[in-house]
Amino acid sequence: MDAIRWNADHTLSLLDQTRLPVREEWITYTEYRPVIDAIRTMVVRGAPAIGVTAAYAMVLAARQFTGTPDFGPRMDRAAAELAASRPTAVNLFWALDRMRAAAARCGGDPGALEREAVAIHREDVEMNRAMGAFGAAVVPPGARILTHCNAGALATGGYGTALGVIRAAHEQGKVSMVYADETRPLLQGARLTAYELASDGIPVTLICDDMAGALMARGQVDLVVVGCDRMAANGDFANKIGTYSLAVLARHHGIPFYTALPSSTIDLSLPDGSGIPVEQRAPEEVSAFAGTPTGPAGVSVWNPAFDVTPHQLLTGIITERGVLYPPFGQSLTERFSKV
Amino acid sequence: MDAIRWNADHTLSLLDQTRLPVREEWITYTEYRPVIDAIRTMVVRGAPAIGVTAAYAMVLAARQFTGTPDFGPRMDRAAAELAASRPTAVNLFWALDRMRAAAARCGGDPGALEREAVAIHREDVEMNRAMGAFGAAVVPPGARILTHCNAGALATGGYGTALGVIRAAHEQGKVSMVYADETRPLLQGARLTAYELASDGIPVTLICDDMAGALMARGQVDLVVVGCDRMAANGDFANKIGTYSLAVLARHHGIPFYTALPSSTIDLSLPDGSGIPVEQRAPEEVSAFAGTPTGPAGVSVWNPAFDVTPHQLLTGIITERGVLYPPFGQSLTERFSKV
Repeated sequence: MDAIRWNADHTLSLLDQTRLPVREEWITYTEYRPVIDAIRTMVVRGAPAIGVTAAYAMVLAARQFTGTPDFGPRMDRAAAELAASRPTAVNLFWALDRMRAAAARCGGDPGALEREAVAIHREDVEMNRAMGAFGAAVVPPGARILTHCNAGALATGGYGTALGVIRAAHEQGKVSMVYADETRPLLQGARLTAYELASDGIPVTLICDDMAGALMARGQVDLVVVGCDRMAANGDFANKIGTYSLAVLARHHGIPFYTALPSSTIDLSLPDGSGIPVEQRAPEEVSAFAGTPTGPAGVSVWNPAFDVTPHQLLTGIITERGVLYPPFGQSLTERFSKV
Repeated sequence: MDAIRWNADHTLSLLDQTRLPVREEWITYTEYRPVIDAIRTMVVRGAPAIGVTAAYAMVLAARQFTGTPDFGPRMDRAAAELAASRPTAVNLFWALDRMRAAAARCGGDPGALEREAVAIHREDVEMNRAMGAFGAAVVPPGARILTHCNAGALATGGYGTALGVIRAAHEQGKVSMVYADETRPLLQGARLTAYELASDGIPVTLICDDMAGALMARGQVDLVVVGCDRMAANGDFANKIGTYSLAVLARHHGIPFYTALPSSTIDLSLPDGSGIPVEQRAPEEVSAFAGTPTGPAGVSVWNPAFDVTPHQLLTGIITERGVLYPPFGQSLTERFSKV
């Protein structure tokens, strides 16, 4: 399963994740600007997937602008527009920085930029497979694993971060059940994670977000693993809204709580989570579903797309370089300060 | 605002709560059996409202069967069928017991049974107003109050339990904001609580259930108050799924956590919450909304309608006889053992 394809004719195809699981529709892009809308409207979502997509969008921009006298400024503007699409996932800025550096090295050659974007994509999958191997080691046999949102193949270049760990543990025969929080308001857990796991034959049970505590109280959760949109230098991390509640619930029940992320999600420039910008999204995401109102007309809504979980609630951080343990400030610096 | 009306022509009208807030439709009942379907399909819901409705259904049964030679057995069967409609809320059984006792006293006279049902309804509203007055005293000035599901006028004979406390506190000018959990899967918080509070001019902000923890972490919740479907003798209580998660989150953040309930919700026959039966409902409540699938076809779903919160997580119990504090086993017995 994948959601991002770079085509032989130098175009980008994205699986429209707003339509899943009802319809599997691919949209093909030949210019960078519609890709910005795709990120904003969540045709593509998930921190690593946004990074990979932005890299390909820069290739589209280079192909649009190559040979023009103001190529450099146009590429800078394209990067700035892409950077403004969504604020929280740091992979977006990481990928744009890497593409800008590549452009500087190669003088803006579209072919070289294409190779860089393809490398970013390939490396993302490789990192996911590496963190899957490391992460599977912390999963006990017969594990019943709870996850939130979608940190799977659909959220990344492929294979997934949190779901990569689950995939690897499943390949080792360790997973007896995955519980997927449906993840309101946009239901990425129901629409994407349940779909992705069921497609792979991994046992999955869908629950509403407000059922997670009761499930833990019944002793039915052995481990929680989630993705990450941005991690600060001390291990505080932003992830889909609801992650923080799960972390508190896991701590109350003595359940190990992990996040899985590639190094491209780590932002060592932020000392702690208080500096991570949290995107607020439209009230209609909460107050209506598929065109049917769920609340009264004009109701006030609070709709943050992410929350920040303090590192104290984390058992471990699963990365492509191994599983990190507290003190996270130290283990993150040791492993990633030279990235 | 009310949801249950007994009409001058001895029929029962229920506001169809499955249609709110999109449509306000009343359904009128002349026989008891369709009322069972109304309870099961949640045309009417909320523990006290189910009790009042069952009492009126017994009046409809008495009017159907009066003068028949097997009146007694038929009434017993009607009571048994009503009792089988939903398992968790104890008010249902309480109201049926009271109607059976009244029938024994009056020889099954429909007029006498009608007076008993009307009394049950009137007393429910009176109890709600009493607990509103007691509960408002624990609400601090400028309070930002979080509630879950709907424990309002729509869930009771009128005025509400948890929302009765909020209404009374609002009348005293103490409420700066009510945050309503939307309450998946059936969205009673969005569809009913937000609607009910907005209709009364009480400030309300709708959130998804997975946002409650983040809201608490921001310091934006001063108090949590919820309803109750059944309370055991030690203060353990069943309420809408998600209540337990909120209680754990409130404890983690040091936020007072109350439940509001009339004595008809207390089941002193159960020593603790482990004996409360928890209803499991259809997977389609989770895997589709308004006819649109939210998850992949055939996905496995866990869908308990309630969870049980241990008394240790409760700050206080708001009743029509006052606010009870720990040790709840003692305070409940002292106030209610003679009920």
